[in-house]
Amino acid sequence: MILTVTLNTALDITYRVRTLRPHASHRVSEVLERPGGKGLNVARVLAALGHEVTATGFVGGATGRVVRERLTATDGVVDALVPLAGATRRTIAVVDDLTGDTTQLNEPGPVVTPAEWTAFQESYDSLLASADAVALCGSLPPGVPVGAYAGLVRAARAAGVPVLLDTSGEPLRRGVAARPDIVKPNADELAELTGSHDPLRATQDARRRGAHTVVASLGAEGLLAHTPEGRWRATPPSRLHGNPTGAGDAAVAGLLSGLVEGLPWPDRLARAAALSAASVPAPVAGEFDGRVYGELLNRVMVTGETSAA
Amino acid sequence: MILTVTLNTALDITYRVRTLRPHASHRVSEVLERPGGKGLNVARVLAALGHEVTATGFVGGATGRVVRERLTATDGVVDALVPLAGATRRTIAVVDDLTGDTTQLNEPGPVVTPAEWTAFQESYDSLLASADAVALCGSLPPGVPVGAYAGLVRAARAAGVPVLLDTSGEPLRRGVAARPDIVKPNADELAELTGSHDPLRATQDARRRGAHTVVASLGAEGLLAHTPEGRWRATPPSRLHGNPTGAGDAAVAGLLSGLVEGLPWPDRLARAAALSAASVPAPVAGEFDGRVYGELLNRVMVTGETSAA
Repeated sequence: MILTVTLNTALDITYRVRTLRPHASHRVSEVLERPGGKGLNVARVLAALGHEVTATGFVGGATGRVVRERLTATDGVVDALVPLAGATRRTIAVVDDLTGDTTQLNEPGPVVTPAEWTAFQESYDSLLASADAVALCGSLPPGVPVGAYAGLVRAARAAGVPVLLDTSGEPLRRGVAARPDIVKPNADELAELTGSHDPLRATQDARRRGAHTVVASLGAEGLLAHTPEGRWRATPPSRLHGNPTGAGDAAVAGLLSGLVEGLPWPDRLARAAALSAASVPAPVAGEFDGRVYGELLNRVMVTGETSAA
Repeated sequence: MILTVTLNTALDITYRVRTLRPHASHRVSEVLERPGGKGLNVARVLAALGHEVTATGFVGGATGRVVRERLTATDGVVDALVPLAGATRRTIAVVDDLTGDTTQLNEPGPVVTPAEWTAFQESYDSLLASADAVALCGSLPPGVPVGAYAGLVRAARAAGVPVLLDTSGEPLRRGVAARPDIVKPNADELAELTGSHDPLRATQDARRRGAHTVVASLGAEGLLAHTPEGRWRATPPSRLHGNPTGAGDAAVAGLLSGLVEGLPWPDRLARAAALSAASVPAPVAGEFDGRVYGELLNRVMVTGETSAA
């Protein structure tokens, strides 16, 4: 199975209103709820692709119960989430009917205690024994040490499990130094890590900092991969309209599924770029339009060179 | 015990943000949750006054579970809520830190099925057997017939249980015709019912339509009561600053507790006006400032005349 880690899970709620006006009262016309947090989005895409996937991380309180119910009943993901005394946070996206513009309200989320962090690490170590690959995704909740991902990367490598890291800021900087197999920063995260706004130079620099492979997600321009076997660019044929939240998570699911299936890098990147683009027209993160994915898969252009060339 | 009916319960959530700006992302600094719906607010005030109180109405889904847990564990109210297949709605009040201005987002809430409405009526009839008084509060959820309160008023009167009705629009119009012991409209609801903006004339008219007693809540001006025993005005000494949501529910709790304790009308009205005013500085509906209540109780001015005078 593929293991995904989401330390900062959420219940993502979407409200539709006519137009949000400050200090007015609004009737919400539609309510959508789904498990949230980047690793859970990755898990849901992997499950939709037919992969066995186990989700771990933290979950607690009444909101946490809803996350667990939805994840297993609706989304087909195996639940290995570790219970937390605090309540899982909610995020609310208020979408204006007329324009599609979104106002975001994010709850702070609970503090993880040292005992809870220890319990998670023990559970993670035992889950690694049956994992074919692991994805470490998203921000760290308060209470978890900033070097958390570095430790989880080292544990995966010690267990011989390929590990992908998708986070930002100081947790990314420290995680990269622990030599993960893959990091998947977006353009901003890559620039923050390396100080360079030139993606080619920055991916090279991120590899020097410890990542074996760097796959940068560059929005509508697709993916730029710098691997031990070569460098590639995967570009989708056209820009799709919709909600880009979750496009990076779909790319991570594409990379991981390609890895465990033993696909060559160009095929992995084509899949990741097609899934990422096909997630944009889907209404919520963690989903993708299967028809669009099928259409795009053969139309993503992959260009590059192997290291031998 | 005192029975309160809330057909349209809610989980009321309050978010504090710095300033709400449409189409921006906001970090919520504080989250408050409490059981909501007018009858649940009345129940919480009655429980805080030391009365035995049972709450019925509808509740369902994950949000409903939270409402039940909070109501019984924190608020000391006996839970006789009837389960619903749909999920209890949430209301979100987004409060700006800088100005205190509030933006309200109200979910639509579930549709009540005919079988659920029948189950509620059966439960209500059996609860009436041990009730000293009953309060019917708030709006009707979709699926419940518009004449619902009229039927519940008749059932209470047939069981010999004094019944107070606090609703608006057509449910109020039909409910009043079923001859409840007390109705407690605010100024707008009274004007809508009677067509008159003169509270004295309107309370008289509402009595003619069937209510034995009319107690109009007139905001900072206090209460105007028109009863079979006489007419009174209860005026708090000064206007308090804060959140007036729930002030009417506190007044209902004052009226009902005074009724079951057998207080004369002027004392009931003084209590209701003091509770109502003391709820304004409390941060959420269904609570009141006990110190302010104690101070106000003897300072509310009650003027009027008995029918014999």
